[in-house]
Amino acid sequence: MFTSGDKKELFLGIDGGGSKCKAIVMNENDEILGTGISGPGNPLLGFEQATNSITEAAKLALKDAGLENVALNTLNTGVGLAGVNLPALFEKMQAWPHPFKQMFLAHDLLIACLGAHHSSNGAVVITGTGSCGFSCIDEQELLIGGHGFPQGDKGSGAWFGLQATKQVLLSLDGLIAPSLMNDVLLAKLYCTDTMGLVAAIADKKATFYAQLANLVFDAAEQGDVIALAIIDEGAEYINSLARTLLIKNPPRISMLGGLTPRLKPWLEQAIQTQLAEPLSSPEVGAVFFARHKLSQQNKQQKMA
Amino acid sequence: MFTSGDKKELFLGIDGGGSKCKAIVMNENDEILGTGISGPGNPLLGFEQATNSITEAAKLALKDAGLENVALNTLNTGVGLAGVNLPALFEKMQAWPHPFKQMFLAHDLLIACLGAHHSSNGAVVITGTGSCGFSCIDEQELLIGGHGFPQGDKGSGAWFGLQATKQVLLSLDGLIAPSLMNDVLLAKLYCTDTMGLVAAIADKKATFYAQLANLVFDAAEQGDVIALAIIDEGAEYINSLARTLLIKNPPRISMLGGLTPRLKPWLEQAIQTQLAEPLSSPEVGAVFFARHKLSQQNKQQKMA
Repeated sequence: MFTSGDKKELFLGIDGGGSKCKAIVMNENDEILGTGISGPGNPLLGFEQATNSITEAAKLALKDAGLENVALNTLNTGVGLAGVNLPALFEKMQAWPHPFKQMFLAHDLLIACLGAHHSSNGAVVITGTGSCGFSCIDEQELLIGGHGFPQGDKGSGAWFGLQATKQVLLSLDGLIAPSLMNDVLLAKLYCTDTMGLVAAIADKKATFYAQLANLVFDAAEQGDVIALAIIDEGAEYINSLARTLLIKNPPRISMLGGLTPRLKPWLEQAIQTQLAEPLSSPEVGAVFFARHKLSQQNKQQKMA
Repeated sequence: MFTSGDKKELFLGIDGGGSKCKAIVMNENDEILGTGISGPGNPLLGFEQATNSITEAAKLALKDAGLENVALNTLNTGVGLAGVNLPALFEKMQAWPHPFKQMFLAHDLLIACLGAHHSSNGAVVITGTGSCGFSCIDEQELLIGGHGFPQGDKGSGAWFGLQATKQVLLSLDGLIAPSLMNDVLLAKLYCTDTMGLVAAIADKKATFYAQLANLVFDAAEQGDVIALAIIDEGAEYINSLARTLLIKNPPRISMLGGLTPRLKPWLEQAIQTQLAEPLSSPEVGAVFFARHKLSQQNKQQKMA
């Protein structure tokens, strides 16, 4: 059982993204006592859903830790959210009557960087459903890409899935040679012809296409030239993100996101060798962020 | 005033597309007596809206002709609609309790072809908000492309606008050289930087991007290499649609759609010279289709 004194040192760390919201409860010894995962947590794509997901993930993390009896309003909480680099959304989130003791709000890339490097200095290349590059060096932030789907997010899971779909459609129309991806894509979407495929993909969003990304890598590994060309183009974009970040000489750079295991082996060798394993998750980064902000706050209060 | 006899020979022709629904009322001498334009008419994107648009456009055409007193249920009507090449949607539309005497339903490409060539044999390349190629020769139809945005519709207005946006974002990120399109796009969308642009384009659809297509052609005409590369890629896709259609030796081939005046000059010379001016609009094609179906029906009734 936690004593009242122990509870004081507990922090919640939350990472809200487009498809899910993850929370941890961590003690002063950096031990993760419990984790919780809820639904979409990107306030840009749905404010009410995001705030509900944040509260739910936090409660689930406490429950997972056996700390149901600890009230949210006794815990300082770091929250990293996609989209809050837009000032209007940051203000809106700050105005949310959150259930925590204090909420320290950061954008998701900053907490990812803090988690990966255990430091406020470093860089990350992220390839999950979306893609972007980010560095924070001496509090100077640099963000490249991450502009959303389909207009941005090149080299992301959604981008790879969309490219596969485009090439399969061209091939079914007889405009390019068939690819190994054709039959796999049709089977995966339970359809048999072009018309069925068109119906299956109508109006689909990034998360749908991201689920198709593996098709490209599977086919490329079997030597499919169309899949190889897609990977060349996507990997070169991610290379260019990494190169731009490396110009700033970050002390560490990591590659994060669900597509990393598939895509990293296709990056330029010189870049692969510079990519360090992330030390911790973005949720841990969110706790680090909250601790840092709280200590700044305490200093300011002492000076006042 | 029209006598009862004249009225018998009046037909309505309707072309329902993604952004608007157009109707004409035409007499037996192929004279267009009135036209009407209403809202979106693609039943795939909204069944109730499409059926409302069809009825409204028909009423507006009658009003424009000074024929408000002619009841819709006295008129045979040809209706061409995007999406009804999907059998399920065709059935659903056929089951609609339409307000006409009889409704003869065809997909939009067939009535476009009938209008352009005044014949059921011919081919069309369409580049408007979307893109596709279509031919009908001895009742054998061939459809290439037209798979929707962003997964298909290469070389369309929406595709050109999206490519421009992608390249401007890459350029604002410093990953490629700046384009003449950068400042024009930011000004057109009332924003001043990357973050403003990202917010302005979030979750936008094909019709939004199609309004940006002219930027590419304007910049290309001033020698912008990024715009020229976009046009090369888009034009080559439209060339490939035309080449595939020409293999079938259609007696006539035309290029239709709002992007035609901008894109046609960039197509391969050998293809440009084969493109014939469309003789009439798709709405006129819809009347031809209705007349043809009605005469087939009359023959069958005589034989029975």
